[in-house]
Amino acid sequence: MLKQVNEKGNLRHLISLDDLDRNLLQNIIDRATKFLELGLGSKDFQKILSGHTVANLFFEPSTRTRASFELAAKKLGADVLNLDVNTSSRIKGESIIDTIYTLESMFVNILIVRDAHTGITEEIARHVSPSVCVLNAGESDTSHPTQGLLDMMTIQNHKKNLDKICVAIVGDIKHSRVAKSVYEILTKFNVAEIRFIGPKELMPDTGFPSAKKILDLKEGIKDADVVMALRIQKERLKESINIPSENEYLSKFGITSNILNLAKPDVILMHPGPMNRNIEIEDSAADGEKSVIREQVTNGVAIRISVLSYISEHISSYK
Amino acid sequence: MLKQVNEKGNLRHLISLDDLDRNLLQNIIDRATKFLELGLGSKDFQKILSGHTVANLFFEPSTRTRASFELAAKKLGADVLNLDVNTSSRIKGESIIDTIYTLESMFVNILIVRDAHTGITEEIARHVSPSVCVLNAGESDTSHPTQGLLDMMTIQNHKKNLDKICVAIVGDIKHSRVAKSVYEILTKFNVAEIRFIGPKELMPDTGFPSAKKILDLKEGIKDADVVMALRIQKERLKESINIPSENEYLSKFGITSNILNLAKPDVILMHPGPMNRNIEIEDSAADGEKSVIREQVTNGVAIRISVLSYISEHISSYK
Amino acid sequence: MLKQVNEKGNLRHLISLDDLDRNLLQNIIDRATKFLELGLGSKDFQKILSGHTVANLFFEPSTRTRASFELAAKKLGADVLNLDVNTSSRIKGESIIDTIYTLESMFVNILIVRDAHTGITEEIARHVSPSVCVLNAGESDTSHPTQGLLDMMTIQNHKKNLDKICVAIVGDIKHSRVAKSVYEILTKFNVAEIRFIGPKELMPDTGFPSAKKILDLKEGIKDADVVMALRIQKERLKESINIPSENEYLSKFGITSNILNLAKPDVILMHPGPMNRNIEIEDSAADGEKSVIREQVTNGVAIRISVLSYISEHISSYK
Repeated sequence: MLKQVNEKGNLRHLISLDDLDRNLLQNIIDRATKFLELGLGSKDFQKILSGHTVANLFFEPSTRTRASFELAAKKLGADVLNLDVNTSSRIKGESIIDTIYTLESMFVNILIVRDAHTGITEEIARHVSPSVCVLNAGESDTSHPTQGLLDMMTIQNHKKNLDKICVAIVGDIKHSRVAKSVYEILTKFNVAEIRFIGPKELMPDTGFPSAKKILDLKEGIKDADVVMALRIQKERLKESINIPSENEYLSKFGITSNILNLAKPDVILMHPGPMNRNIEIEDSAADGEKSVIREQVTNGVAIRISVLSYISEHISSYK
Repeated sequence: MLKQVNEKGNLRHLISLDDLDRNLLQNIIDRATKFLELGLGSKDFQKILSGHTVANLFFEPSTRTRASFELAAKKLGADVLNLDVNTSSRIKGESIIDTIYTLESMFVNILIVRDAHTGITEEIARHVSPSVCVLNAGESDTSHPTQGLLDMMTIQNHKKNLDKICVAIVGDIKHSRVAKSVYEILTKFNVAEIRFIGPKELMPDTGFPSAKKILDLKEGIKDADVVMALRIQKERLKESINIPSENEYLSKFGITSNILNLAKPDVILMHPGPMNRNIEIEDSAADGEKSVIREQVTNGVAIRISVLSYISEHISSYK
Repeated sequence: MLKQVNEKGNLRHLISLDDLDRNLLQNIIDRATKFLELGLGSKDFQKILSGHTVANLFFEPSTRTRASFELAAKKLGADVLNLDVNTSSRIKGESIIDTIYTLESMFVNILIVRDAHTGITEEIARHVSPSVCVLNAGESDTSHPTQGLLDMMTIQNHKKNLDKICVAIVGDIKHSRVAKSVYEILTKFNVAEIRFIGPKELMPDTGFPSAKKILDLKEGIKDADVVMALRIQKERLKESINIPSENEYLSKFGITSNILNLAKPDVILMHPGPMNRNIEIEDSAADGEKSVIREQVTNGVAIRISVLSYISEHISSYK
């Protein structure tokens, strides 16, 4: 398997949370918290990636994650190159690995990749030279490691004893890269109880031994400390007769302020965005006082700044 | 109505010129003039928005206005985020207000918005937190306030006594956001005479009490101090039998150097761009010595720098 | 003809290598080499274009050349404006010269233009004011001057006596702007022998007096010091019965490691990218030890930095 840390134990790539130990992940979260405390406008940050080049390679459309990484890189003083799907050489038939070699030869130090195909970011990481780092910005339905980190950071901001809490993840778990990275970090941090809640058709078949699968929303939400609603892709609601329609989905699995009353009184409500309001989440819940959805976005920038700053240490050792 | 100035009377948003007093507008113009005198490469400017983030949210295509705002923000040292229509979450069904909340949570301080729908920028401004500012970069056929400001700046550069001049606006006034913002600032600055010239079908029905509506170009241009040709959307020339065709439009309402001879000898010719040459304006006029069209573009950058620098004062008071 | 150097003999535009003398071109290459030696992260570079604005006007899709110019400009501290084909005013019917006037009025100092039409960059250069510079980033099938320079830089890195070497250019020479700019610089630098190799249908009819045209690959490659494979546009392989199909092309004109054994033992293999692997070039050759393809990319950034730094001297004389 690809090594994501270098010989000194420092982070080099971030492809998956899988083989990273809890200590390292906690350090990333702690540094993110520190960055937020110092304020993002701080001049000192501008030196961390000054003279370095970050390329955003997004082969799937994205506003929030692309913007979040771009901002993080710019706050650290990097030169940022946005490579668009449409204008990319990929349409001219160049292989993605040749595109990577090209960027590397242009002194790009950090590649931030979003792609629809499983394994692409790892494949890229295997091909780059020792001073180049690769970050996974969301891959297929497989993984989205910075999302896992920002969600853990958000949970830790509100819940002290992870080994006593219950996290309920609601929606299309089967096709969600968010759910997978969140599951990984929750198990790594020994969260007491993880529940997957959703219609049978959107439940993963295998592979999540620590998760309790619950097909009824009320039962699943009961006494939860954290509720995480996932984005439902509207296309899926149409493509199968076994999956409820939009209205039906809201009534069966949509998070409302009433439903949240079944959880612990101090429950927090999360959503990775972008939200489909009144499908998987109702305004009363999304904008209610239990919602930490906007905090997640803020923590997302901070986590990406933290990851980039760790990676800059690896790069610096090659100068 | 939304307040565009803060408690100290400083500019916070720029959504419409409507409720801003002449003094404030004159200050913006005067500061723009000063920026031009100092030269845009000045290092001092780079501090004004350093550490701040500006997001360009353009939901309609635009080269000149987007580039003008982007340059202005960069000259002031801001980090600039371009959010494209096509790659935006809006296509994933996220509401525009959620996009705004997301950007705000990413520490974006200034939102520059172009949208095809009336009221969107004001709606956005109502939802942002106290330290965030919203600038209208052109909205539907309703308003384009920085265009009004740059046009007034250009007129003042050439005409001393506004209360004695006649400004003739020619073309599709009904559908022009430029015409509306220009009308507003001209009346605010007590311009002696405002004329709207164009075919009946492109004339607004109501709402411009100070404008004289004239259906004949020669009559309308006569003795004017300022002639402003508006862009005609070619689609409109086809969609109605009552509106002249391209050739016919040129002969009836196109600005030529001959037509300009009917105006005052020191008349200036303006156009907001992009021009349809040989439809609403002939080369002889566009490139002639009476044309101040390129000066308008320069003043546009200066006005946007000035507006951003005023707004930076509001933002700084929240740090 | 348009003058590309100013009165002092300094480079102002780079439209074509045609009328530039060998000395000037060698100086550009030498400075590029120096930039690479100093390392691109150097702080000193950031001052060279600080306060200046570079606009990328790409009317054809491009990853590598656009990214290469953008990086070069950013490493020199310029503000960079990317003007996309799709969102450009050109779709609103504005003439390209009006777009240029607009950018000029916005204080853009350097215009980097890629266009599908022959003569556009020169036409633009004729219209800009004395302090504005125009760089050709690839034009139709006519010219690509920075590619010629980076290829010469690469050849010089490996071959000392140009007047004794043989350069074999293989592929669709007829439609290649790369081949044309490379031919120009090879003749200017008195390269001993230039060979054009390819099927008859992809061979230029006239205009390359110093090139030997050879229709057989093995014959053409024999004893060559430099082999340059050109990108074949797949569309062309389909459009004519006289041009071989993809598989046939590989067997007749594709560069393989076996074929390279016919050349000199110290031959270098070049390709301007993006490559169609297993059509015009086989993996064994592209990734073999004779390949300098990635070095070309690195030299491309260095050449663009060098060209921009020369041009900055012209601009500075106007301040």
